[in-house]
Amino acid sequence: MRLIRFCKGDAPAQLGLLMADRAVALSELIAEAPTDARDAIARWSELAPQLESAEAEGKGVPLAHVRLLCPLDATEKMMAIGLNYADHIAEMSGSGMTTPTEQIWFSKQANALSGPFDPIEAPRSSDAVDYEVELVAIIGKGGRHITAAEAPAHVFGFCVGNDVSARDWQMKTPQWVLGKSFDTHGPIGPAIVTLDEVGDPHALDIKCFVNGDLRQDSNTRHLVFNVWAQIEELSKVMTLKPGDVIFTGTPGGVGMASKPPRYLKPGDVVRCEIDELGAIENTVLAEG
Amino acid sequence: MRLIRFCKGDAPAQLGLLMADRAVALSELIAEAPTDARDAIARWSELAPQLESAEAEGKGVPLAHVRLLCPLDATEKMMAIGLNYADHIAEMSGSGMTTPTEQIWFSKQANALSGPFDPIEAPRSSDAVDYEVELVAIIGKGGRHITAAEAPAHVFGFCVGNDVSARDWQMKTPQWVLGKSFDTHGPIGPAIVTLDEVGDPHALDIKCFVNGDLRQDSNTRHLVFNVWAQIEELSKVMTLKPGDVIFTGTPGGVGMASKPPRYLKPGDVVRCEIDELGAIENTVLAEG
Repeated sequence: MRLIRFCKGDAPAQLGLLMADRAVALSELIAEAPTDARDAIARWSELAPQLESAEAEGKGVPLAHVRLLCPLDATEKMMAIGLNYADHIAEMSGSGMTTPTEQIWFSKQANALSGPFDPIEAPRSSDAVDYEVELVAIIGKGGRHITAAEAPAHVFGFCVGNDVSARDWQMKTPQWVLGKSFDTHGPIGPAIVTLDEVGDPHALDIKCFVNGDLRQDSNTRHLVFNVWAQIEELSKVMTLKPGDVIFTGTPGGVGMASKPPRYLKPGDVVRCEIDELGAIENTVLAEG
Repeated sequence: MRLIRFCKGDAPAQLGLLMADRAVALSELIAEAPTDARDAIARWSELAPQLESAEAEGKGVPLAHVRLLCPLDATEKMMAIGLNYADHIAEMSGSGMTTPTEQIWFSKQANALSGPFDPIEAPRSSDAVDYEVELVAIIGKGGRHITAAEAPAHVFGFCVGNDVSARDWQMKTPQWVLGKSFDTHGPIGPAIVTLDEVGDPHALDIKCFVNGDLRQDSNTRHLVFNVWAQIEELSKVMTLKPGDVIFTGTPGGVGMASKPPRYLKPGDVVRCEIDELGAIENTVLAEG
């Protein structure tokens, strides 16, 4: 299934499923449907059979008539791993980065969460805004000390994400966090596709286009640390919770690595797409 | 005023005020009292006059009969600045750290939030758990691009915090985030004291004791970047929201800087205290 949040005109946001080319509100399918995405994810084992057996015929609205929103309206944690594709490590070696023997984690903050078709802010204070397409895992069943073998049972699903990065802010101190946490710099979507529907998350083509120009082109099989190993590492430290967001790394081809760098400018359209998950497309907009 | 969360026996957590030595539930003082701390903080300008004029005589329960909880049950962001007292920078110089010309920000994650008298976890995976007493600012009125001059109007209040740090995890990669984000490694409290009652937040004695032994002893006047400058910097990047938590830096005397290092071990009692704000006291407990 494909969990979405959407709105039609000025109506309030609704939680729903993307079914073929229709957005169907959960409330159309089942009684006492949750309205909060994290609540739905936490209750998924109970909801999924009900949703699967619900009659969807004739329900919902065509996707073209709604606006897809960020599938999560909030999250407790938004963790992201750095230097996790070999080709990206190679292109960043000029900045002193080498293949890590330990997973390098930083975080984005929840103010960065943004919808699959929302604008990316080009902040007043940065002229080095860059794209990073990433496979994004969404935690389903929370927990601590989850082994890699157990990890799949803790993943609700996956979506496409763009770990937008203000490189000047990322690099002005040794800590990357501020450069990764501008408002709107974490668009995800278009839907959260449940793990059963994704199949193997480590065999997906992953691409990023800027104004139609292919910039990043890889496959998730090239992750240095795979998603299950990432969950094992994170959960040694923190209790993971339903709806936690994990950005799993970006492949080569980021704007910073071009000579000269090719940063995003207002008007640019960034499209990130991953097999089985669909695409998000965000236009860069100068901060007002 | 002093905003607290507390519970009495097995009763649910309540939001309240600390009045002399009594915990008084907001619901005892005003009609339609908020039950969520961030909601109360967001509505404070409307609530404060009502609370100030409410009759408190004979209400509440003695502090000795309740358990004080973390004054926030959740937060969107928990930002923390590194190397922000001269004496702490000096003691860390052996680790290659020097006085920063830019504010160095990292983040803790909300799973680290913990109560003023809750245990600090000594994780299975770390044997280098350290204390860092810090003045903690809680955002009241949210916003973006807040200047230092405007910043006081955006602060709800202050509390004491301990930026507990697993040094082995903090230092095993260049990014500090994981080492700062273990469960229970962000106790704050005992109350959030509103700014009007704190007075000048940059003139407060700040101390940390381990098993009664004074380890950190400074004054917030020694902050390299003061709280207002911190809010200016953060809000260039992110929209601050009511209830966001800002750890403003720790003075010298951390365990890591001793030769040999003096890390926390199960059974140790860490007491952090700051003028006007009171004290938190947390016992180190081996992870089960």
